[in-house]
Amino acid sequence: MTDYVLTLRCNNRRGIVASVASRITGHGGDIFEAHQFDDQETGMFFMRVAFSMEGSEEAFRAAIAEEEKGFGLDLTLRPFGQKRKVLLMVSRFDHCLGDLLYRARIGELPIEPVAIVSNHPREALNLTLMGNIPYHHLPIAKDSKAEQEAQIRRLIEETGAELVVLARYMQILSDEFSADLAGRCINIHHSFLPGFKGAKPYHQAHARGVKMIGATAHYVTGDLDEGPIICQDVEPVSHADTPDELVQKGRDIERRVLARAVAWHLEDRVLINKGKTVVFAK
Amino acid sequence: MTDYVLTLRCNNRRGIVASVASRITGHGGDIFEAHQFDDQETGMFFMRVAFSMEGSEEAFRAAIAEEEKGFGLDLTLRPFGQKRKVLLMVSRFDHCLGDLLYRARIGELPIEPVAIVSNHPREALNLTLMGNIPYHHLPIAKDSKAEQEAQIRRLIEETGAELVVLARYMQILSDEFSADLAGRCINIHHSFLPGFKGAKPYHQAHARGVKMIGATAHYVTGDLDEGPIICQDVEPVSHADTPDELVQKGRDIERRVLARAVAWHLEDRVLINKGKTVVFAK
Amino acid sequence: MTDYVLTLRCNNRRGIVASVASRITGHGGDIFEAHQFDDQETGMFFMRVAFSMEGSEEAFRAAIAEEEKGFGLDLTLRPFGQKRKVLLMVSRFDHCLGDLLYRARIGELPIEPVAIVSNHPREALNLTLMGNIPYHHLPIAKDSKAEQEAQIRRLIEETGAELVVLARYMQILSDEFSADLAGRCINIHHSFLPGFKGAKPYHQAHARGVKMIGATAHYVTGDLDEGPIICQDVEPVSHADTPDELVQKGRDIERRVLARAVAWHLEDRVLINKGKTVVFAK
Amino acid sequence: MTDYVLTLRCNNRRGIVASVASRITGHGGDIFEAHQFDDQETGMFFMRVAFSMEGSEEAFRAAIAEEEKGFGLDLTLRPFGQKRKVLLMVSRFDHCLGDLLYRARIGELPIEPVAIVSNHPREALNLTLMGNIPYHHLPIAKDSKAEQEAQIRRLIEETGAELVVLARYMQILSDEFSADLAGRCINIHHSFLPGFKGAKPYHQAHARGVKMIGATAHYVTGDLDEGPIICQDVEPVSHADTPDELVQKGRDIERRVLARAVAWHLEDRVLINKGKTVVFAK
Repeated sequence: MTDYVLTLRCNNRRGIVASVASRITGHGGDIFEAHQFDDQETGMFFMRVAFSMEGSEEAFRAAIAEEEKGFGLDLTLRPFGQKRKVLLMVSRFDHCLGDLLYRARIGELPIEPVAIVSNHPREALNLTLMGNIPYHHLPIAKDSKAEQEAQIRRLIEETGAELVVLARYMQILSDEFSADLAGRCINIHHSFLPGFKGAKPYHQAHARGVKMIGATAHYVTGDLDEGPIICQDVEPVSHADTPDELVQKGRDIERRVLARAVAWHLEDRVLINKGKTVVFAK
Repeated sequence: MTDYVLTLRCNNRRGIVASVASRITGHGGDIFEAHQFDDQETGMFFMRVAFSMEGSEEAFRAAIAEEEKGFGLDLTLRPFGQKRKVLLMVSRFDHCLGDLLYRARIGELPIEPVAIVSNHPREALNLTLMGNIPYHHLPIAKDSKAEQEAQIRRLIEETGAELVVLARYMQILSDEFSADLAGRCINIHHSFLPGFKGAKPYHQAHARGVKMIGATAHYVTGDLDEGPIICQDVEPVSHADTPDELVQKGRDIERRVLARAVAWHLEDRVLINKGKTVVFAK
Repeated sequence: MTDYVLTLRCNNRRGIVASVASRITGHGGDIFEAHQFDDQETGMFFMRVAFSMEGSEEAFRAAIAEEEKGFGLDLTLRPFGQKRKVLLMVSRFDHCLGDLLYRARIGELPIEPVAIVSNHPREALNLTLMGNIPYHHLPIAKDSKAEQEAQIRRLIEETGAELVVLARYMQILSDEFSADLAGRCINIHHSFLPGFKGAKPYHQAHARGVKMIGATAHYVTGDLDEGPIICQDVEPVSHADTPDELVQKGRDIERRVLARAVAWHLEDRVLINKGKTVVFAK
Repeated sequence: MTDYVLTLRCNNRRGIVASVASRITGHGGDIFEAHQFDDQETGMFFMRVAFSMEGSEEAFRAAIAEEEKGFGLDLTLRPFGQKRKVLLMVSRFDHCLGDLLYRARIGELPIEPVAIVSNHPREALNLTLMGNIPYHHLPIAKDSKAEQEAQIRRLIEETGAELVVLARYMQILSDEFSADLAGRCINIHHSFLPGFKGAKPYHQAHARGVKMIGATAHYVTGDLDEGPIICQDVEPVSHADTPDELVQKGRDIERRVLARAVAWHLEDRVLINKGKTVVFAK
């Protein structure tokens, strides 16, 4: 018996659940966790099914391909827990990177880090958890961004990376590159109530006297901080916290929010619904 | 189009999802939110489906009855948001009661409170939100508990109450009465890390110096505080909080946890899984 | 022995703590909870001292007046837990109002509600907890805002209200009125990560697909939602929550955040520090 | 100007705040953050003062020594942010250890790790962040616990470790060793609502169907999990979380709670109050 996760997205039409569930049953599959959601505003339907199946994956894929055609499904099927190749990008702050690598190392996060890309040299980082993951120092000089992004694209292609994680990568990706990465690139950024635009947001939050700070993980789109939100979290802060201490608390929130977003993505729990997401969390 | 919620519980067998989904589709139903969960330890399968249907509820019920028989399903079907008759029980602390009544009044909680039962007289309570809901003062004297419970049973029968909420009702129900109410009676009690047995738990928690206090809503079973847990929440406390202030913070947690549990129950999101629950939260 | 709370604010100068503590000791006072904070950015110093004292309040006030002059202190002294007269303002949504009234009724919040002011008639509200608190229906027609605010000012004066709470009062106060109420008027509003400007913020938050919603309690200043923040809180939401359900969750957050802010204000735990606050929470 | 933190604990007597504050002022000190708390139950008084001072630390220590004698104070004085020597103990699960080492490395936690002690060999751990911190593999065989503890005692003495952190060290310290470490040894353990005794607590929590799991950091005393609590935190879990997933969520809570407790200890924010703590958090 192998465990699989199937997700699908389509324009809502009656009978999808019945039809897909029948295919699974027909191939000897047994559903153990499933969610369906119909967004009545967009008319889009979303489904995630986890099931065990003894039979041939190939035969099932062929059967499900008929569903795909019939209903116009955007469908994924994947053995559950299968490791995926991930390209990790970072600038100087490596708390998120270290966190992801540790989770991978203890088997909590099913990823195979195929490359670390940074605009800073390896020596600028604090951590030694990188082991022998290839480290690519791709600095950005004035006017070299296009070339640098071309290098990253080549790396993605060569390594077969299925997911790119911006683990506090502080450079803005070009619109074109962002668009190409749509749905397979996760970013993390700070978030506040209210929000603050511009540089040094923790300093702005401190100046405003907010009592909570937070972080948001989202898929990258052209608009850097405006992609579909995957998850968010916050922590209380006080008048006595300096901007540096806000940054420090922010690190804790950032790394746990990013880790959760990546884990959910890897378990195929996050389906993009235009500018937002459907998250079939446990 | 009417919205319905169908829940089912059964020993897991292949094909349930397909079969039920087909019935819904066959009667012109359109699923907009669904969850399935298979507890691999107990072998029990749980499902909640919300769907819109134009056709006859009666015809659908007949069709689904065949499923019930075929799969040995424990099934419920209910128009979504239908008000249910609720009997509310309280002692002297009426913060939870007032909260539930207010939520009912503004249309947030689809309940029709058919009776308030207390072992204290109406004048002992602080709130005036009770309007003209019948108030039954059923005190308990030494040896009169059996008689008092018989009165409550009659009230449940006469009013047709489908749910009993112990909104800080401080008397222990008899084992027999508790067992009879299984699955249709929700209780709220304080919870701590670690737990404290016996009287004055907030004082014990204070003496121990805990930094968080919480509350648990659960279904009633013979064992008062040990029934299947529906939801829990906590709040931080400090060394400077007196036992009274812990009680005060406790009130806030109790009322929001109980309200959430009742809301989830009313939306048929809580399915009992032996000594615990499956909660298909949003 | 009577318990007192003394707060002070001043430009930081050496010796304030020693000097004030000596005065308290000199008058037979015994400190049981105290906090001091020096904002190194603004150079302002903040202190809150709770103490028991047997001696004459009058004599102590005379002594402390010398400190006030000497150090240029902005000082308050109040018997702890003394009820304060509060004017409550509300529009149609009365969840915050009901919550505050219930807390007052059970003795949790030391307030004496001297008036309820609304731009809607009493019948528009859901709650009956108002008892015989004078209810003032002061509607706002085109061009009548100035006159309405004048009426509110007269009410504040006549009732001797020390605090105004905007418990979901949906009208914008004029700049002048806001300025006059500075430091003695608390407002509550929704908050999001990121923030949303304009009408129907919960709908905007839904459209954006946020995963958390929140509320902020703050002192009123000319800029309605930009006064010094007292406290904030959030709750997770999901893709399946409709705008109405966000509003409903928002109600829960709003009422607990406002209640906390009012409680802290009444315990003199909140000191204004230019555009922000120092909160000496427990 | 150097920043200092002074803490004191004593039987409450009038005039302590005034007297200590006068000493600070008298030596040119300027208080920037302070808290006082009088536990009216135990009659103990607690104070933490952070201040800047230009003058001689030695002269101030001499002056403050008089206070110590006069009031019978249990007093500490320390330059703020001074690194302290820490001995870290771990078994096989090194998520807490890795977290502390990373925080130390980026300068967030002012510790100098002088030794890592484990009952497992270095190869059993997942992390490579240990650098060249001396690693002591001190296994425990039947009847060798006393000898092993003697080795740890020697290490503490030789390294001058001021704090011992049990970062998921799964051996129970002897009563005698625990008592010797009182106030300078912090432990982390899982916590649940309700609590569970005995082995495999996450499995028990899963069997009970709890909806939240948590962790508690506390000072070690003879009774392993019953020492004075420093901080606690929780996270929601669901019916769909397996015991392994509870363990995984537990790791996240454990490491952030332990890190917070250690940080607060290092900032002298935690004062022991018999079986509990006074935490002067920000």
